[in-house]
Amino acid sequence: MAYEFKATRRVEFSDTDMAGIMHFSNFFRFMETAEQGFCRSLGFSVVLGQRDPPLGFPRVHAACDYKKPLRFEDLVEIHLLVQEKKSKSITYGFRFRNLSASPPEEVARGLITIVCVAHQPDGTMAAAPIPAEIAGKIEVAPAELLA
Amino acid sequence: MAYEFKATRRVEFSDTDMAGIMHFSNFFRFMETAEQGFCRSLGFSVVLGQRDPPLGFPRVHAACDYKKPLRFEDLVEIHLLVQEKKSKSITYGFRFRNLSASPPEEVARGLITIVCVAHQPDGTMAAAPIPAEIAGKIEVAPAELLA
Amino acid sequence: MAYEFKATRRVEFSDTDMAGIMHFSNFFRFMETAEQGFCRSLGFSVVLGQRDPPLGFPRVHAACDYKKPLRFEDLVEIHLLVQEKKSKSITYGFRFRNLSASPPEEVARGLITIVCVAHQPDGTMAAAPIPAEIAGKIEVAPAELLA
Amino acid sequence: MAYEFKATRRVEFSDTDMAGIMHFSNFFRFMETAEQGFCRSLGFSVVLGQRDPPLGFPRVHAACDYKKPLRFEDLVEIHLLVQEKKSKSITYGFRFRNLSASPPEEVARGLITIVCVAHQPDGTMAAAPIPAEIAGKIEVAPAELLA
Repeated sequence: MAYEFKATRRVEFSDTDMAGIMHFSNFFRFMETAEQGFCRSLGFSVVLGQRDPPLGFPRVHAACDYKKPLRFEDLVEIHLLVQEKKSKSITYGFRFRNLSASPPEEVARGLITIVCVAHQPDGTMAAAPIPAEIAGKIEVAPAELLA
Repeated sequence: MAYEFKATRRVEFSDTDMAGIMHFSNFFRFMETAEQGFCRSLGFSVVLGQRDPPLGFPRVHAACDYKKPLRFEDLVEIHLLVQEKKSKSITYGFRFRNLSASPPEEVARGLITIVCVAHQPDGTMAAAPIPAEIAGKIEVAPAELLA
Repeated sequence: MAYEFKATRRVEFSDTDMAGIMHFSNFFRFMETAEQGFCRSLGFSVVLGQRDPPLGFPRVHAACDYKKPLRFEDLVEIHLLVQEKKSKSITYGFRFRNLSASPPEEVARGLITIVCVAHQPDGTMAAAPIPAEIAGKIEVAPAELLA
Repeated sequence: MAYEFKATRRVEFSDTDMAGIMHFSNFFRFMETAEQGFCRSLGFSVVLGQRDPPLGFPRVHAACDYKKPLRFEDLVEIHLLVQEKKSKSITYGFRFRNLSASPPEEVARGLITIVCVAHQPDGTMAAAPIPAEIAGKIEVAPAELLA
């Protein structure tokens, strides 16, 4: 059972905008990096296209609170914590820490809620229970970590 | 005094991901499109670098609720509504409508809170009042539109 | 028979980088905007997933020469010209004109070569002739325009 | 004196498009990742804003030949090789190798030419010699590697 994962990324030139800081939309891409790493660490992929019906995990909610900017070449730790787990959805919390700051400091907090969906033959998607072999590997993080 | 703006964009191939739908992070770029159009419609830019000190409008909060996916070539209306106005910050709400659906339907709702900051000579940023000639042009949308 | 198309886009905040100009990789996304508009103008889409086998148009070559930078809010015309047409591939040339400059000026030239491929059941792709109803609508631009 | 650098990146979900492969424009962002790593390995940054006048390295040419697609979660090696060195410009070649293929295989080759420019007080840019302490660390790769 796992409830956390830490990914590290460096802010690239193409992640910045003309204000000289990481564009706010890229924090969401960084969250996804951590989510994908979390899934890989558990032995599965966020893409489950081989199943019948194929499953997917679209996002139904995403949010971010920005406290400090990230700049070019900053090394960033994205700390994923499982915040809520339901039969058909999971909410991940994310803490962004700028490891290039001295001392390292939290710069943002994010949130993503995914739902498990089955892709129907007619192209539509229907909410579906998260497969047991996946759900069984994921648990909610201890309350003190989520504070 | 203005409280709304409608921008229209078509979902590009590069906006999609392997799930065949618009990547969730791009909804935030689309919100910014509407914000920039709103500012231009009022005669100013989201970039106020010529001032002394230079002003900027970094985001402190961004969120999105996704109801339905957007697909390649869908024509999307992004309806900006001023949701809250304070001396140093503004919160914009966004309604995404897929105009390619029949009938057109709401597919997502978003939120962005910006703060006005002055760029200090030492590279830091400090919250600052929104200039009167800007603040004076913006008002909160009627409650019935925000419901 | 068509050999050209003009698309117009405005440089968005998220298109810029910390150098204050449009990131060089985004010129390729803008080229694709014009390509998609060209296809739509002829009554088909760059995505032909409904065929059997499904066809696609991956890129085998892309290039860009940058002469002048594009900046935030610049209005850009992307002029597509069909440069070469073979049975299984098409090469598009692109001229970028900054309409916000006075007078408007060419800022970049690009090139994209696409090949028609059939998606095989085993997941691989094989080059395939461009369908006659598409090829029949496209011709190479007059030499004087390509100079 | 250095003439090469190897960077490694994993293809993210947000790097893919609806064709299920990495979007062609992202190969250019990956090239930049390797370029930035190369500069850092030599002790400087692609951003030299602290100089007087501030220097920058805009791209004047970029190109890519695509042989095979990259897919989600593929691990990619981007091998930078210095291909040409002039007083005011450098051309980098890039080889993309898919390390997740068995055996690993080359999937694309790229090229970027940068010029050194000085940012003038009036906002324009003028070509300038690459500073000696940078130029002195970079040499052209052996011919057999560039073949």
